[in-house]
Amino acid sequence: MMKFTSKTLFIFLSMFLLVLFLGGYVNFGKASAQSADPLPSWNQGAAKKAIIEFVRETTSQSSPKFVPSTERIATFDQDGTLWVEHPIYTQVMYILESVPVLVRAKPELANVAPYSTVLDILKGDRAAVAKLTMPDLEKLAGATLTGMSVDEFNTEVKKWLAMAKHPRWKRPYTELTYLPMQELLKYLRANGYKTYIATGGGQDFVRVYSERVYGIPPEQVVGTVGGTKFGYDKGGKPFLTKEPKLLLNDNNAGKPEAIHLMIGRRPYAAFGNSTGDRQMLEYTKAGEGARLSMLVLHDDAKREYAYGTAAGLPDTKIGTFTQALYDEAKKDGWIVISMKDDWKHIFAFDR
Amino acid sequence: MMKFTSKTLFIFLSMFLLVLFLGGYVNFGKASAQSADPLPSWNQGAAKKAIIEFVRETTSQSSPKFVPSTERIATFDQDGTLWVEHPIYTQVMYILESVPVLVRAKPELANVAPYSTVLDILKGDRAAVAKLTMPDLEKLAGATLTGMSVDEFNTEVKKWLAMAKHPRWKRPYTELTYLPMQELLKYLRANGYKTYIATGGGQDFVRVYSERVYGIPPEQVVGTVGGTKFGYDKGGKPFLTKEPKLLLNDNNAGKPEAIHLMIGRRPYAAFGNSTGDRQMLEYTKAGEGARLSMLVLHDDAKREYAYGTAAGLPDTKIGTFTQALYDEAKKDGWIVISMKDDWKHIFAFDR
Repeated sequence: MMKFTSKTLFIFLSMFLLVLFLGGYVNFGKASAQSADPLPSWNQGAAKKAIIEFVRETTSQSSPKFVPSTERIATFDQDGTLWVEHPIYTQVMYILESVPVLVRAKPELANVAPYSTVLDILKGDRAAVAKLTMPDLEKLAGATLTGMSVDEFNTEVKKWLAMAKHPRWKRPYTELTYLPMQELLKYLRANGYKTYIATGGGQDFVRVYSERVYGIPPEQVVGTVGGTKFGYDKGGKPFLTKEPKLLLNDNNAGKPEAIHLMIGRRPYAAFGNSTGDRQMLEYTKAGEGARLSMLVLHDDAKREYAYGTAAGLPDTKIGTFTQALYDEAKKDGWIVISMKDDWKHIFAFDR
Repeated sequence: MMKFTSKTLFIFLSMFLLVLFLGGYVNFGKASAQSADPLPSWNQGAAKKAIIEFVRETTSQSSPKFVPSTERIATFDQDGTLWVEHPIYTQVMYILESVPVLVRAKPELANVAPYSTVLDILKGDRAAVAKLTMPDLEKLAGATLTGMSVDEFNTEVKKWLAMAKHPRWKRPYTELTYLPMQELLKYLRANGYKTYIATGGGQDFVRVYSERVYGIPPEQVVGTVGGTKFGYDKGGKPFLTKEPKLLLNDNNAGKPEAIHLMIGRRPYAAFGNSTGDRQMLEYTKAGEGARLSMLVLHDDAKREYAYGTAAGLPDTKIGTFTQALYDEAKKDGWIVISMKDDWKHIFAFDR
């Protein structure tokens, strides 16, 4: 029998453990990710199955549809896909609720439409909403989203997010993200996917909270973009001003165009909930190998909202999921996620 | 004295080693990165010292200027900063050498200027270069960089890169990257920095080879961008066409504007070599905490080229490093890298 001194035994055991570590046999993170359900808020069903199968197919070295980790890109629409978009897009609420701030700085605006109309709405005059036209909204967007420095804008949005509350749940908008989608983001990232937001909302607006709320850094937010202008302040310090100039409208055909601009390659997975996401889902699904295109159907009036026109749901003008889109999804192998049937929980706070 | 059975000893040692691992005391990658010189092609001097000091200041947990790893962004100009830009920008060579391909498809162009002028140049008629005007070049760029699908363009560029050779070194352009800058890219990445290219060249052009040549993925290439247009082929398959529409000229003030568009935050380090990089370097240096702005001075006529107008160097119109830029660098604490004095080797092949 070989005799071990405590020193040789230590070295022997150290080597043994090193081999285990370096070989990846001991890895707490991975071990737990594999054993536990990565999508606990999803009910068993076609949607959950499709996601897990897609990840397996694209990440198993032995799979014929294996995708190298550097090419794993997944894009997510935001409004109605990652968080609540009713009764109105969060950024539109920001625009409206920024009007009083604007009027405090320029009191003469208080009696001028559309600013006066917005003040009436905020005082509770619901009928006044009907007075707001699309050009009015564009004017308000220009006044509240441009003309200031990038840093000032970030500060204003942060301030607003900290105090603003959703009218139904009386919670900050940033708590109204869908728990199953948060799990999906994490699951994809744990499997080497780079997750991007591809939103019709303002790129700079979403960037303010994307890292904190979704774990998605600013550089992975693709959105509707306005120009900025480089200049110097009185002290000669350079800064960027947000300009009222539209570079790219990240909706419909603009989504794949913006994805090309910002990412430069085709996603392997894309997630949306309305006709504005159609071209992104088509573009994704048209790539070679395993591609996943999914649509969130808002069919849960009790826990969230029911709308979209497909399957007889009401048309609320925000987040239109038409029957034609539904039919295209079925025909082309996209997966429709039923909030009612596929999601065990909607929000982290409703568990 | 406590008595250890081999089992308790094993557990004890395992725990001990785990603590070492989890605490980061045992980490082969890091240990070797710390002991070896990460910048072996740099001579000892102010430039090398500034880089190492910047990395230490921004990555040591105990440093008052520590930067969280998610915020570590570094941007690099390409032409003249990462690779050779003389006698002419590589992308301009691509445009010129693509004309014969164009003429094969449309033979009627062979006798029409500026296509005929380019054919003369490629046949060796150096005097013909003088005939090319800026509008000519724009016309040629439009004809060779737009009008095809994104996939077709990528295929053409790849084909050209595989066969094209630099007139002086008779090597592929992609071998003419500066070894010290390649080391710098790797060193920054090893320290948690996300490295970006911020080039006046075409974003789509550089994306074709950025991953292979610099280890920088397509989504981290910021460049001059044209629009794309989403559409469907005859079979109904969606694709993107490159449009002759300029979205952003990534030069001068356009550099910080493009960096904001594509990244959404201010870099901690930026590297350039000409007046086109001035605003990017100013914008970077104006941020809070430790910021590194560096300029490559082409003062090595023997091993590469000498040009720029600063310090009495000749003005070659490509890559202008003026005396005013040099003075601003000295005044504002940017670091000038002398290729002659700071770089032990210029290329990987000259070692």
